[in-house]
Amino acid sequence: TLTRLADALPELGLLWRSVSANDAPPAVRGLHEVEVQLRNTTKHLQTGAGAEGFGARGVVELLRAVAGGAEALRTRPLLSSIQCVISPLFWDEGPVEAIATYAEAGVPISIVSMAMACASAPATIGGLLALTVAEVCSGIAIVQTLAPGAPVISTGYPATMDLRSGALNLAAGPDDAFAEMACTQVLGSLGPPCATGLFSSGAKRPGWQSGAQGGLAAARAVFSPADIYNGAGGLYAANVFSPVQLVLDAELFGAAVRWAEGHPLDAEHLALDVIERVGPEGHFLAEPHTLAHMGELWRSRILDETSWEEWEAAGEPDAVARAEAEVRRLLAEHEPEPLEEDLARELERIVAAYEAQALAG
Amino acid sequence: TLTRLADALPELGLLWRSVSANDAPPAVRGLHEVEVQLRNTTKHLQTGAGAEGFGARGVVELLRAVAGGAEALRTRPLLSSIQCVISPLFWDEGPVEAIATYAEAGVPISIVSMAMACASAPATIGGLLALTVAEVCSGIAIVQTLAPGAPVISTGYPATMDLRSGALNLAAGPDDAFAEMACTQVLGSLGPPCATGLFSSGAKRPGWQSGAQGGLAAARAVFSPADIYNGAGGLYAANVFSPVQLVLDAELFGAAVRWAEGHPLDAEHLALDVIERVGPEGHFLAEPHTLAHMGELWRSRILDETSWEEWEAAGEPDAVARAEAEVRRLLAEHEPEPLEEDLARELERIVAAYEAQALAG
Repeated sequence: TLTRLADALPELGLLWRSVSANDAPPAVRGLHEVEVQLRNTTKHLQTGAGAEGFGARGVVELLRAVAGGAEALRTRPLLSSIQCVISPLFWDEGPVEAIATYAEAGVPISIVSMAMACASAPATIGGLLALTVAEVCSGIAIVQTLAPGAPVISTGYPATMDLRSGALNLAAGPDDAFAEMACTQVLGSLGPPCATGLFSSGAKRPGWQSGAQGGLAAARAVFSPADIYNGAGGLYAANVFSPVQLVLDAELFGAAVRWAEGHPLDAEHLALDVIERVGPEGHFLAEPHTLAHMGELWRSRILDETSWEEWEAAGEPDAVARAEAEVRRLLAEHEPEPLEEDLARELERIVAAYEAQALAG
Repeated sequence: TLTRLADALPELGLLWRSVSANDAPPAVRGLHEVEVQLRNTTKHLQTGAGAEGFGARGVVELLRAVAGGAEALRTRPLLSSIQCVISPLFWDEGPVEAIATYAEAGVPISIVSMAMACASAPATIGGLLALTVAEVCSGIAIVQTLAPGAPVISTGYPATMDLRSGALNLAAGPDDAFAEMACTQVLGSLGPPCATGLFSSGAKRPGWQSGAQGGLAAARAVFSPADIYNGAGGLYAANVFSPVQLVLDAELFGAAVRWAEGHPLDAEHLALDVIERVGPEGHFLAEPHTLAHMGELWRSRILDETSWEEWEAAGEPDAVARAEAEVRRLLAEHEPEPLEEDLARELERIVAAYEAQALAG
């Protein structure tokens, strides 16, 4: 259902897993997750599923089935694999095995550093930046050593620690924003595509905090753009997934994209002749220039633009209520392009075979 | 009370009027407002009170009383006066009279254009920009003609129209942000200090929308800074003033200021030696470097950083609830520096004299 929702939102280009298949045996959870997602979206997937050799081999088999063979998958990778360094500076055996499998199959690997200032990184933002860059470079070096030329993505989610509790800082603010921007700029200069976290506010419910942290994040996409963004729909620092927050974040991201596009300042758009003709005490409502260009203005799906009277009459719905309605509408109306019957059965067969092997082993 | 709250918030450097003295005769409303504000804050005031000659003369008399005479007011202007052009391109008689009075007294005049694309300005953002700049320049020309060298502030609040209703677009997004940035940059290049609107979301209550629009606005202060910002505490496009939203906006503005300050990237802050010493599988919690620098990290007053369990135990308070508590705390604890008794009586006397004159006239 969540995959179907994300499939419906045009602002989203790729999908993470939003829930974990905790009802499946641990060794094949990732396979179940990927299978369900492949059946419910035609968008690119990005997942941490398959974080060791066995799981990675299963995921590659699923992907090859959908892509139509090993070479077809190499040409059109349906999924990119998230592999995390353990900060500071440590690679576990599982991810390195998985990297070998994915890299050999041509599945892009997103090398992720999630260093946290004060705990797994220095307390300074400069030190957090240095460590993040070093860790991502170490992952890229591993990939290129195992499979020279294999596609990688450089990903930094630098964070700060809550000094009060020692946990991840849910009240993330300017330091985190500065660190993410700095990492995006340095990682982006390395060559491979660069990803950064946006959204996934520290708030526990959609509300002012998720809006404020989301607005600051969206602005980073305008002023310090990355190639790929992760995090829409997350709350409580991505420990909670909210379909309503996903719609809200998609709205903000759409606004950021429009903001970054800018506006032409040519003679037609500066409209000095129109201003001169209308003149003092006139208005522009009836101008052909207005009619010709008003469609260029951005329009919100979610932000409340009603008058106070309309709003009261409608039962005082806020933007969160509008997003809830949008979630219901999208789920009712959107049907993703289905996999062919045969292919769907083939995926089930692959997952079942791996599951049998995992339970036997 | 609202003035007292704003006096207490360190993020706020100047105060607008947040309520109107509608219980006073129209001609002296502005005088009552300014008198109350002078008694409740030592911060700079900025107000549209006194938008014609009579009111402006009264305001100047109040200000001279507090400043300690005409020359003292010129040296330390306690207030700046907002004077609005009527878009497109029209100056009414009242504001021009007021400009003459204020400019002669050395009270800075903020020349404000509030053009709205599609209605009082072209539908294009370029045209909105051109008109705003032309209008502000026209106001500056009026001031400088009437009183050469008088201090002015260039202020643009460009907005877009809600195409559905014809009213101000409460769902303001990327177009408005782009227009405000462009105006800030062009007006800022003219020479006089430049002001822009921040906050005053279109939302009707503090919540996701006021956070999202506020976050996007705060980011403008980071990436396209003006000299003066107006709008904190506003909702429903500044038709509603919310003390809670004021605290929330102040929090975001503080975060933006910290973001803009940045972080040093010198050897001490890059901390390469610390990273090398800690090494793989270590941690930074016990490092002297961490202890020395962790105090440099920004800490939120309002954003919720509690764990899920703490949050549930506390009754699930969100950031808005925390801001409400902060409003109550500030009002209970903060006592503005009072005016001397004699001076307060003198202000009352001035207002009463103008009121008598207005009622007689």
